[in-house]
Amino acid sequence: MTDYRTLRVALLGAGAVGSQVAALLRRHADELADRAEARLELAGIAVRDVDAPREADLPRELFTTDAETLIVGSDIVIELMGGIEPARTYILQALNSGADVVTANKALLATHGSEIFDAADQVGASVYYEAAAAGAIPIIRPLRDSLAGDRVVRIMGIVNGTTNYILDRMDTEGAEFADVLADAQALGYAEADPTADVEGYDAAQKAAILASLAFHTSVPLDAVHREGITQVDKAMMDAARHAGYVIKLLAVCERLTTDAATEAISVRVYPALVPRTHPLASVHGANNAVFVQAEAAGNLMFYGAGAGGVQTASAVLGDVVSAARRHIAGGVGVGESTRANLPVVPIGHVTTRYQITLEVDDRPGVLATVAGILSDGRVSVATLEQTVVAEANGHPGVARLVIGTHRAREQDLSETVERLAASGVVERVVSVLRVEGD
Amino acid sequence: MTDYRTLRVALLGAGAVGSQVAALLRRHADELADRAEARLELAGIAVRDVDAPREADLPRELFTTDAETLIVGSDIVIELMGGIEPARTYILQALNSGADVVTANKALLATHGSEIFDAADQVGASVYYEAAAAGAIPIIRPLRDSLAGDRVVRIMGIVNGTTNYILDRMDTEGAEFADVLADAQALGYAEADPTADVEGYDAAQKAAILASLAFHTSVPLDAVHREGITQVDKAMMDAARHAGYVIKLLAVCERLTTDAATEAISVRVYPALVPRTHPLASVHGANNAVFVQAEAAGNLMFYGAGAGGVQTASAVLGDVVSAARRHIAGGVGVGESTRANLPVVPIGHVTTRYQITLEVDDRPGVLATVAGILSDGRVSVATLEQTVVAEANGHPGVARLVIGTHRAREQDLSETVERLAASGVVERVVSVLRVEGD
Ligand SMILES: NC(=O)c1ccc[n+]([C@@H]2O[C@H](COP(=O)([O-])OP(=O)(O)OC[C@H]3O[C@@H](n4cnc5c(N)ncnc54)[C@H](OP(=O)(O)O)[C@@H]3O)[C@@H](O)[C@H]2O)c1
Ligand SMILES: NC(=O)c1ccc[n+]([C@@H]2O[C@H](COP(=O)([O-])OP(=O)(O)OC[C@H]3O[C@@H](n4cnc5c(N)ncnc54)[C@H](OP(=O)(O)O)[C@@H]3O)[C@@H](O)[C@H]2O)c1
Repeated sequence: MTDYRTLRVALLGAGAVGSQVAALLRRHADELADRAEARLELAGIAVRDVDAPREADLPRELFTTDAETLIVGSDIVIELMGGIEPARTYILQALNSGADVVTANKALLATHGSEIFDAADQVGASVYYEAAAAGAIPIIRPLRDSLAGDRVVRIMGIVNGTTNYILDRMDTEGAEFADVLADAQALGYAEADPTADVEGYDAAQKAAILASLAFHTSVPLDAVHREGITQVDKAMMDAARHAGYVIKLLAVCERLTTDAATEAISVRVYPALVPRTHPLASVHGANNAVFVQAEAAGNLMFYGAGAGGVQTASAVLGDVVSAARRHIAGGVGVGESTRANLPVVPIGHVTTRYQITLEVDDRPGVLATVAGILSDGRVSVATLEQTVVAEANGHPGVARLVIGTHRAREQDLSETVERLAASGVVERVVSVLRVEGD
Repeated sequence: MTDYRTLRVALLGAGAVGSQVAALLRRHADELADRAEARLELAGIAVRDVDAPREADLPRELFTTDAETLIVGSDIVIELMGGIEPARTYILQALNSGADVVTANKALLATHGSEIFDAADQVGASVYYEAAAAGAIPIIRPLRDSLAGDRVVRIMGIVNGTTNYILDRMDTEGAEFADVLADAQALGYAEADPTADVEGYDAAQKAAILASLAFHTSVPLDAVHREGITQVDKAMMDAARHAGYVIKLLAVCERLTTDAATEAISVRVYPALVPRTHPLASVHGANNAVFVQAEAAGNLMFYGAGAGGVQTASAVLGDVVSAARRHIAGGVGVGESTRANLPVVPIGHVTTRYQITLEVDDRPGVLATVAGILSDGRVSVATLEQTVVAEANGHPGVARLVIGTHRAREQDLSETVERLAASGVVERVVSVLRVEGD
């Protein structure tokens, strides 16, 4: 066996992901050494409770509650505790002591990424976070390295498995949101408190990370427009299907030109109508996929498991091997490239296509009124479908109008919808959805 | 503007890919400098004919026919000439002079990869070849880096755009091979001499490259089993559709256990039946996709354009930026990992499922004879469908038997098919196809 140099690896956290990382580090030690050209010695595992039951069979003597001491003298520190503190402090401590850091902590990177990358730059260390954007799907290296000579125009990502699972079942089974959510919770696909997933917080963190990488710009989390899927109901799903779409929670990161003809980006998370023929429409269950449009490369898609302990551990270990190779090869780490520093425009300035579903009085002149309000609001109609919903004896019935718009500015559109709602001829605004990917 | 160090870049070849690389290097010079943390100075372009018309508008003074002189003193050499010689000699010259090399030359890497990687190792330089395996699709970094801590079990790739275009049109239009090929040639999707594509040579080169990376083993091109698509006809396509499959030319790279219980791999290219529900089945037109199964990460898929001048240029430029960053960061290049050194088994030892279509005499006892030959040959039947093809007055008619097998060993299967053909009850062996991805 080759006589490799030994690198000291500290693991912080042994939960769903950490326990699998520890198990794989031990089980595949020889293979990993060949990949990394270094032996990866798991020096210890910091947890809150050394006696807690673990998913993998790991020697008790590896565990400690003293993360700070464990970090000292480590070459590579793997942070899999989650949350902001103490993860942030430990990562900074590790970098300042010269260690490379591997983390899957999207919450931390989306909020304190700049601080962490700057700290790494200061000492010439590297931060690896393949698992933070789309779980097991390799997306960080493709964006950072493979597309480094290209210009990303647009990313559309299904980056949250829980919401994709829910929406997919609503679509295929015609079920209601609440029922599928309850089922997903029972099956372990959704957490007891599903807020982070169903309200789009998790997807927004990932969108911030992806947009930062793709556009070489530090994107603060609060610049990401975020809407969840709790408003999506069976009727919207059925209407989408009828029109040849499926509803997906998308993270959209887009390069655009402002009114002042300067370059900017938009980063947003919301449920959107995706044409059934689009590759993202056939991403089923809890799977994730990231669709990337680049100027030269054209359309690319990356598909796989966006979460899961062992799946995520694969991405973490890939980073550990990269970190080890860098240690062995020598040289300084290459920091994040944020030189483009593009402004993030607010959602009101974004243009997309929309589908507006209205219930209107079914009497003469109503359509003209609706059309007038739309054109006054600079919202141009591409398709229109009217169906009669209910008709009462002698009374005017209710008609349903499904309006597909050309690209319109979000601000114009929302003002127009308000005016429609207050027009007296609209009984109910059933839904307003953006159309993406057509 | 930041004051970057300048790196000298030599470009060999200005054809479909090279001219786009040159144009992008010049057009995006500032952005590339920010990505690479170095100015990339295009020192010259070696071609055969300096006066030949070029797809991009490039200053005539950049062109030279003297590649050797151009290489001297370069930091990065981009080889986009294609073919074995003089590409091989120039690449070795570049590496030996300390330059990093970027190439898209699958023919060269599949035949002389070891020699080139060894030469790079000797001097601590790196060879980048993202564009050599699947055009614009980032697949090299995911396999080499992202999955470095995982174990790849299987790769199924649609890695040749021309054949996918042909098969897709045969499938969707019910057209014959020769007609679609002629059309593809007229449209520029297939070359005047289509052999490299339709006989699977191009796919086999890519399979050798992908398998080498995925299994950390140097896979010689002649260990790759190769069959093309010229035998695929409308009847086979129709039968596949009827059975819920689509025929795709697949590059399959697989980890397996030999009879002696040792680890080995199989690398093969052939048209195979893929279930319509498999993600690879919805890869249409000239697109490529690589489906990867890994022990921890599970199923991943990478999708995009497998060829095209500007698309491929994107991958080449990503490599140029990586090479530049390595120059700036310092340290030695990390060579290819071939330590696993697994044996490649011949096709006869591979097991897959098969679909055998036979025309047999439609009389009593025939099915029993066929079943007997199959079971004697250790080929176990999973599904069987019999339909009557033709019936003549008083004479026995012809029946069509479609037999789906359980996993069988290729050698057993081909011997069994020979015995069936010689049995006296089989009129014609219509087709024998492997089933992959179910
Ligand atoms: N789970 C996934 O599928 C997935 C996918 C992608 C990314 N991620 C990210 O990966 C990270 C880890 O996720 P996870 O699901 O593995 O989390 P988890 O199951 O909740 O595990 C957290 C681990 O960290 C330890 N820990 C927490 N606070 C600590 C502290 N103050 N001091 C020492 N140890 C502490 C816990 O110790 P005890 O066990 O003693 O309580 C536990 O072992 C998170 O950033 C998450 O966002 C997870
Ligand atoms: N085209 C694609 O879509 C694609 C996709 C993936 C990978 N690739 C790979 O990329 C490489 C280049 O492909 P390509 O399509 O760009 O090839 P190409 O259009 O045939 O261009 C070849 C270029 O190399 C020059 N050249 C050839 N032999 C030379 C020699 N002995 N000395 C100096 N210059 C020489 C030619 O010069 P002249 O112009 O003066 O004749 C020409 O500019 C190949 O390895 C190919 O397999 C191509």
